[in-house]
Amino acid sequence: MIVAEVIADLRSDTVTRPTAGMREAMATAEVGDDVYGEDPAVNALEAEVAALFGHEAALFCPTGSMANQIALQLLVPPGAELLCDADAHVVTYEMGAAAAYGGITSRTWPAVGAEIDPDVVAGMIRPDGYWAVPTRVIAVEQTHNRGGGGVISLDTLRELRRIADAAQLALHCDGARIWHAHVADGVPLVEYGALFDTLSVCLSKGLGAPVGSLVVGSGERIARARVIRKRMGGGMRQAGILAAAGRYALAHHVDRLAEDHAKAARLAEAIAPFGILAAPVRTNLVPLDLTKASLDAPTLAAAARAEGVLISVLGPRTARLVTHLDVSDAAITHATTTLTTLLRT
Amino acid sequence: MIVAEVIADLRSDTVTRPTAGMREAMATAEVGDDVYGEDPAVNALEAEVAALFGHEAALFCPTGSMANQIALQLLVPPGAELLCDADAHVVTYEMGAAAAYGGITSRTWPAVGAEIDPDVVAGMIRPDGYWAVPTRVIAVEQTHNRGGGGVISLDTLRELRRIADAAQLALHCDGARIWHAHVADGVPLVEYGALFDTLSVCLSKGLGAPVGSLVVGSGERIARARVIRKRMGGGMRQAGILAAAGRYALAHHVDRLAEDHAKAARLAEAIAPFGILAAPVRTNLVPLDLTKASLDAPTLAAAARAEGVLISVLGPRTARLVTHLDVSDAAITHATTTLTTLLRT
Amino acid sequence: MIVAEVIADLRSDTVTRPTAGMREAMATAEVGDDVYGEDPAVNALEAEVAALFGHEAALFCPTGSMANQIALQLLVPPGAELLCDADAHVVTYEMGAAAAYGGITSRTWPAVGAEIDPDVVAGMIRPDGYWAVPTRVIAVEQTHNRGGGGVISLDTLRELRRIADAAQLALHCDGARIWHAHVADGVPLVEYGALFDTLSVCLSKGLGAPVGSLVVGSGERIARARVIRKRMGGGMRQAGILAAAGRYALAHHVDRLAEDHAKAARLAEAIAPFGILAAPVRTNLVPLDLTKASLDAPTLAAAARAEGVLISVLGPRTARLVTHLDVSDAAITHATTTLTTLLRT
Amino acid sequence: MIVAEVIADLRSDTVTRPTAGMREAMATAEVGDDVYGEDPAVNALEAEVAALFGHEAALFCPTGSMANQIALQLLVPPGAELLCDADAHVVTYEMGAAAAYGGITSRTWPAVGAEIDPDVVAGMIRPDGYWAVPTRVIAVEQTHNRGGGGVISLDTLRELRRIADAAQLALHCDGARIWHAHVADGVPLVEYGALFDTLSVCLSKGLGAPVGSLVVGSGERIARARVIRKRMGGGMRQAGILAAAGRYALAHHVDRLAEDHAKAARLAEAIAPFGILAAPVRTNLVPLDLTKASLDAPTLAAAARAEGVLISVLGPRTARLVTHLDVSDAAITHATTTLTTLLRT
Repeated sequence: MIVAEVIADLRSDTVTRPTAGMREAMATAEVGDDVYGEDPAVNALEAEVAALFGHEAALFCPTGSMANQIALQLLVPPGAELLCDADAHVVTYEMGAAAAYGGITSRTWPAVGAEIDPDVVAGMIRPDGYWAVPTRVIAVEQTHNRGGGGVISLDTLRELRRIADAAQLALHCDGARIWHAHVADGVPLVEYGALFDTLSVCLSKGLGAPVGSLVVGSGERIARARVIRKRMGGGMRQAGILAAAGRYALAHHVDRLAEDHAKAARLAEAIAPFGILAAPVRTNLVPLDLTKASLDAPTLAAAARAEGVLISVLGPRTARLVTHLDVSDAAITHATTTLTTLLRT
Repeated sequence: MIVAEVIADLRSDTVTRPTAGMREAMATAEVGDDVYGEDPAVNALEAEVAALFGHEAALFCPTGSMANQIALQLLVPPGAELLCDADAHVVTYEMGAAAAYGGITSRTWPAVGAEIDPDVVAGMIRPDGYWAVPTRVIAVEQTHNRGGGGVISLDTLRELRRIADAAQLALHCDGARIWHAHVADGVPLVEYGALFDTLSVCLSKGLGAPVGSLVVGSGERIARARVIRKRMGGGMRQAGILAAAGRYALAHHVDRLAEDHAKAARLAEAIAPFGILAAPVRTNLVPLDLTKASLDAPTLAAAARAEGVLISVLGPRTARLVTHLDVSDAAITHATTTLTTLLRT
Repeated sequence: MIVAEVIADLRSDTVTRPTAGMREAMATAEVGDDVYGEDPAVNALEAEVAALFGHEAALFCPTGSMANQIALQLLVPPGAELLCDADAHVVTYEMGAAAAYGGITSRTWPAVGAEIDPDVVAGMIRPDGYWAVPTRVIAVEQTHNRGGGGVISLDTLRELRRIADAAQLALHCDGARIWHAHVADGVPLVEYGALFDTLSVCLSKGLGAPVGSLVVGSGERIARARVIRKRMGGGMRQAGILAAAGRYALAHHVDRLAEDHAKAARLAEAIAPFGILAAPVRTNLVPLDLTKASLDAPTLAAAARAEGVLISVLGPRTARLVTHLDVSDAAITHATTTLTTLLRT
Repeated sequence: MIVAEVIADLRSDTVTRPTAGMREAMATAEVGDDVYGEDPAVNALEAEVAALFGHEAALFCPTGSMANQIALQLLVPPGAELLCDADAHVVTYEMGAAAAYGGITSRTWPAVGAEIDPDVVAGMIRPDGYWAVPTRVIAVEQTHNRGGGGVISLDTLRELRRIADAAQLALHCDGARIWHAHVADGVPLVEYGALFDTLSVCLSKGLGAPVGSLVVGSGERIARARVIRKRMGGGMRQAGILAAAGRYALAHHVDRLAEDHAKAARLAEAIAPFGILAAPVRTNLVPLDLTKASLDAPTLAAAARAEGVLISVLGPRTARLVTHLDVSDAAITHATTTLTTLLRT
């Protein structure tokens, strides 16, 4: 296979490299030992993110998976239950950690993009008791990764909050790309924050920091989270190097997500005529369903790669394009031309 | 509340008391230390049950929950995945043991009685790999407890076997009431056995033994099961006392399940006009959906109890009647009269 | 190898078979569904055992391993610590369940028979905190199985209680053979009960019942224990069959343990001259250290077996003899003759 | 309490801040998405470290705790056993992760500094089997943290290797400070590497990198480690920022550990006359036993802090001084004066 120079890496927004400004922020960061709680950059980042979502506290973690899993372990004791959709990151891409490490059992409702039918969720809840597994948390993903970057509406989230309250359950948000929802729907982050007991948010996807996520919640929960993070092996030392990049990202890379959304829309528009858009494009993800296409996903990906365009294969007939900080307008133009040419054959 | 003498205990087939013949079998059982593999009654029972399902070996366990959980721990390593329906006993009534003790993560398809759409199941399977949780086992429940005693058809089971084989997955059967499916559909037990990697079967529900279930599988798996059973605290000593009851049950109480089915049909027929049958009655379970009834489930149960009729409340508007060895024809007549009278008001 | 008729099975007191009186008690037991809390024999047994130890409640379990593990799961959350001796049953013969199912980490002090140096234990305790694993429970074994049936003195137990109180820890007793300690030292069971937060006691070892142990503790703990028992697969139905045997054993087989102790003393006396007694014999266990003997443990066991005497091999040079209900005076005489003859060669 | 400017932070070698050269290395690092295996700095670091120890592969982790726990999960299945000393980091400071997340049970031998009696270890091993928990790994700590920075001799390690081989066990080295042992004893790292199945090594303690440890082992094991790291939430993205610091540390900060050892020796020499050295000082740790001192540990620490000298309190009468990259000769002089003055009162 001919491997061209990479012109457009559309596999994921995790591939972004730190910008010059961000590198400068890291190089000059004042740091300390965060296991002792003495890293000024980490402390500042945690305070900033907690404030953004109107919560008491936040904890810096090496990954979004760890932030999610800490939240779930905080909310659900071993043997109790997590409800989420069947395509949720927490039960798909985190290697079964909720069960393997938290002893948390899960049932799932069918995933249809980012759509949620609150009645379906309500119908699955099981009360505390001696006979049956008690439900303890409902988790949603905003925006939804396998749901094609779809955005859950504020109305749906409020209805879920009402359902959770009625059943005395916690509500967790896997907010790895909540920034994109915020930019796409114009919902203030603090309004999202008010709806959830815990959130995880990610600095290393759309926001472009090299490493880092945070779990957000009450002061009591985050104090316990610190112990769980140590147990999971996430208690880093001079993590301020990374936190400084995160603070830079928060200051400079949130509003600009609108550009990524526009680029995704351009890709979607060009591809739409081929009938392969798996879902309407709302944010920076373009999900492809190649069932009706002339090429399957691995073939399309290989052919595109030969032209310097990298895409993600999710299944034999499903694929994904993702726009981000490191994809220029010119790269989008090249990707559009490449993909439409390939799809036309 | 007035508590009458119990005339018809229709809560569950777990309430049966050992018959005189069964007590005699227990009283005269030759026993030994089963942890040393020296209990003749246990060894005989294990051999008999393995043979019934055409498998190499079986292991006696104190409960069906333990038999199911041992099977799941045999088939799925920590962090890998179980697929089953959202009402399955293994994720509902076993206190989250698969996750809490086996580290097994689960996703579920929606439960609609005992019906299974094999395409839905196939669509949920995730392959082995570095990125995502690998699916390792599909579990079905025959007959289905929360599915109203429904029977999964042989065609559906064969299609699931084909799907499991194609994806190199194991197939487990929670066969607590597989005897009822066998009697209802006339499918030989050995034919069921051929479709599954492991099965659990129960002696203390419809078959009327006081205690005991078995997990059935290959010789290699059952050897490992013995270690897991010890870890779960199920390595009993002179368990032959119980095994003797189980052997008696197998010899005398399988074919007679047809009587329980007929009694359930009588109950269903009487109740049907009230529009509260949640599903067609196929075996010994009569599931009630009281949404359209004048009484909710707790009220109906309390009123019936005052007349000596015990029923199970499953939710505010759902209830269940179960026929079994200890419910006589006269008791069914009394229950029918009682319930129809109450429903009429 | 020639296998003679078994004359003296000295491998373990778990091999006892129910007596005629005990079988009669089982055959006539009034039973019910214990998962519903409706088995009169189980309820009576639980009340009796709780009263014997002066605790509020007790729970019937299929095995001593389950009773121990339920107690540990009650007392220690995942990630916290159990302290016990390195030969304790809970970390040796329960297949790692405390860690595998309870997530409980353990450190051990060196085992020297049943002796405990309270200062050593006190020195191992770690306080609650963010930095280090917190200790939560100290577990002792009375009498001590691998410690040769040794009895921990009341003074030592009281000192451990004082240490546990000072550090706000729980104290658990694996009391599988606590009856033997009670008979050997004349300490009332209620006095032992007062020293522990939880105890497990066994009916199927020295007491001769076919199956069953109980976990003893406060009402609140035993209520939670019921859920854990269900999770472990120990929620049996008409368990009263077994409980009836247990009640019979409590009524008839406690005081007679003195006979087993006397028989063990006879064995010990005969063997002592060969210099192979691993520890002084206090109860019904006779531990052998064959380092200085002419035969190793497997050879001695095989040769004894050929004469109808079964003994337990614990290691290349360690073995164990156990007296119990099913070993007559004549059997002891035969065993004594057999073993001394073999050792003399 | 008066808090002076910090002159000598002797609490731990984890408090080091990146040097200018190290910051430059980070600022200019070429990075990529390490979850995709595309980070050149991470790949280079992993290859370098594997080569240093003569192993096939290595994996970058956010912390030493994660590196240790991944190794243990690689080597020990749930329900099997880890043997280590009672003060080992893996059972003391990693929040019970081996049990809580790996289901690994542990027994411990008494810790006496870094000394190990191989016969004691050999006597604790239990073979595979149905009856008892099988031992699977022996873990040692080089140098030993709570053992006062003591170094295990090559002879002892070779004897442990022989014991492990004879029992078919794995041998793991918690080598957070193995660099110090290498420098103190002059043993080549590759010679240490040859003795262990897996090692963890740390870049953020003595070597002065801000974040990062590696687990080292065979290619097959490290491939599986990658999945476990993702499950633990350690799959970072542009981790090359951190790896670049680690590579710089390996190139510039290993040999200079001799300076830290010399500084620790100076501290020890000054303190020795007070009879409070808990163990001979071999590397960069100075363990204090204040039993015979006029001040207890918290009092000494508070008084020293008022003079700008920070030390670690480990217990009421135990404390620790640690030398490292950020402690100058002048700081040692100041610390020596401060501590001797305080001890004299």
